[in-house]
Amino acid sequence: MGQVVGVIGAGQLARMMLPPAIELDIDLRVFAAGRGESADRAVTEVGDMHVLEEVLAFARGVDVVTFDHEHVPQDVLRGLVDAGVAVRPGPHALQYAQDKLLMRRRLAELGIPIPEWAEVRDEAELQAFIDANGGVAVLKTPRGGYDGKGVRIVRSGAEGADWFEAGEPLLVEERVDFRRELAQLVARRPSGEIALWPIVETVQRDGVCAEVLAPAPGAEGADDRLGYVAATIAQSVALGLDVTGVLAVELFETTDQRILVNELAMRPHNSGHWTIDGSTTSQFEQHLRAVLDLPLGDTGMTAPHAVMVNVLGGPQEGSYGDRYERAMHAHPDAKIHSYGKSARPGRKVGHVTVAGPELDDVAYRARAAAAAFDDDSTV
Amino acid sequence: MGQVVGVIGAGQLARMMLPPAIELDIDLRVFAAGRGESADRAVTEVGDMHVLEEVLAFARGVDVVTFDHEHVPQDVLRGLVDAGVAVRPGPHALQYAQDKLLMRRRLAELGIPIPEWAEVRDEAELQAFIDANGGVAVLKTPRGGYDGKGVRIVRSGAEGADWFEAGEPLLVEERVDFRRELAQLVARRPSGEIALWPIVETVQRDGVCAEVLAPAPGAEGADDRLGYVAATIAQSVALGLDVTGVLAVELFETTDQRILVNELAMRPHNSGHWTIDGSTTSQFEQHLRAVLDLPLGDTGMTAPHAVMVNVLGGPQEGSYGDRYERAMHAHPDAKIHSYGKSARPGRKVGHVTVAGPELDDVAYRARAAAAAFDDDSTV
Repeated sequence: MGQVVGVIGAGQLARMMLPPAIELDIDLRVFAAGRGESADRAVTEVGDMHVLEEVLAFARGVDVVTFDHEHVPQDVLRGLVDAGVAVRPGPHALQYAQDKLLMRRRLAELGIPIPEWAEVRDEAELQAFIDANGGVAVLKTPRGGYDGKGVRIVRSGAEGADWFEAGEPLLVEERVDFRRELAQLVARRPSGEIALWPIVETVQRDGVCAEVLAPAPGAEGADDRLGYVAATIAQSVALGLDVTGVLAVELFETTDQRILVNELAMRPHNSGHWTIDGSTTSQFEQHLRAVLDLPLGDTGMTAPHAVMVNVLGGPQEGSYGDRYERAMHAHPDAKIHSYGKSARPGRKVGHVTVAGPELDDVAYRARAAAAAFDDDSTV
Repeated sequence: MGQVVGVIGAGQLARMMLPPAIELDIDLRVFAAGRGESADRAVTEVGDMHVLEEVLAFARGVDVVTFDHEHVPQDVLRGLVDAGVAVRPGPHALQYAQDKLLMRRRLAELGIPIPEWAEVRDEAELQAFIDANGGVAVLKTPRGGYDGKGVRIVRSGAEGADWFEAGEPLLVEERVDFRRELAQLVARRPSGEIALWPIVETVQRDGVCAEVLAPAPGAEGADDRLGYVAATIAQSVALGLDVTGVLAVELFETTDQRILVNELAMRPHNSGHWTIDGSTTSQFEQHLRAVLDLPLGDTGMTAPHAVMVNVLGGPQEGSYGDRYERAMHAHPDAKIHSYGKSARPGRKVGHVTVAGPELDDVAYRARAAAAAFDDDSTV
């Protein structure tokens, strides 16, 4: 096709954009902080994303700039736009993914269901929120958190003391009594078209996504209330925040059947990795289509169920090379994805997806295939 | 995973090996005759495949050498093996794909059903074969033919005169009265494991593959005779010729219900492009697994039917850029694959695959999506 997409950040999300880029003949170029990252094969420029000139040099000759993460500073994003570069999602949308206080305020304005929340500036304000919300709350740094970092359960104002030292306001939220976590993935192109995948259930362990069930159990029917509510919310967020590209809306399903927005990610997201093998159009292909303002692809599932299980680094560092053969041998039906990263403990180094007609069977096989990557001692 | 596969030849087959190589973290390196070919993104060495030293320089540091085509000379292949390089498929297997006379002789020895054939050295021998086979025959140059080149229908010995001038024997075969053409794709790893995809129907136009229906209509059932016969033939060929990697066995289904072997390709093949979107394991991923002697993946279909239609260059040369948007808009369910090639008339520049539950519907949509790439005048 010949269009050029520039991706800032060279992690596994940029890496997984490369296969669909090759199939569609999109020239994918990656701006990296250094060599040897997950998307190294597509890196065309190494530089500092905090320096506008370096990002501008990368952006010359690309049709659109997009992202592997949300950490590019606003002044750089706005500098790109001022220089005439198409940036998708744009700085105005990305600010809500970069600052959880801004995000909560904007979602509240839009009337989107979210947990009780407040901006707190000191221990007294935090204590007041805790007292008003049953003696417990979730304290978050508005910026820089991911995979459970920057999030803390608190039962007194004093437990926020170290974070208040930075002099910045914090976000506090009610501790939601949730039945499970869900995610709704949506893609939107600048000219307006929107596509939604089925709602999924995400299972977290130690604050990190462990597995994803697609569709969310109980949400299989086309007339499902859960799917309808989640789709409506995700569309409202995409429109209300003017997000382009893929947007992941992480949700709580509360014990009293409410759906509340937890987090937002304005890029392909771990909750959508299953789409590579379980949907006609993967989130990575869709993101490329969306940021290029091309017609979006069909988001139907290729099988009734798909389950994705993350592969994390184990207690020992080192290569997972010999474990691939074991996983392939035992699970010829599992789709194995490796991010080409060294296996530090707890680090996401790959994932496995199995698709098929029966949820229990598919989930069992996906978990077993992922377990084949564990240390020998734990198999 | 970290293994290194070196591919000689930088066409679309090498290109389509790259996405699964990325997902499995296989380092794919391509040896090309020049820059700008379809698999350019993965080229690590430019050289002349007829010069052993140049190919050896490429092969240093790779775990296995494999191919985008069958045209690497035997002396170079054997030089690689002598230097300790793993070459898959090996020279002994590849000679049968390189020389149709050797292939016919070997298949006859193995008792595999093939058309009537003879080696002919002059017009008189050709005339004798024609006379013995109903006054018509198919004359083939043993080497260098593909996509209808090097093949000619003849009704007299004199019609082979120009080809005999080269002084080499030719292959003559009966003109098979066939109902349709089929293909059986198989993968085999050096340690012996074999995997077969469902048998497919291939539709040729002007000697070039136009579309592929998977499975071949009428061969949907697990107890199907056609599939069983084709599978048995393909396994016999893979074993008898010691092929490793993917092998495509092109077949005739005759009007009297016989299955005869037409051609062999010892690499991923146009008849298997549908597997990218229609099978749990694509032929490109499987080829990488097989040549690395890794466990093979599941070859089941992800939908009851898949239809692949080739996109060929039209009367006008030039970029197909604006036609992608048209195809994507009208056919969000079509999987579009571009080879990044300029669109010379009749040249394969991409393909489209649609998968789904009903053959008629799937075929209609795949053809319509491919037609969206035709010149405006013909839409």
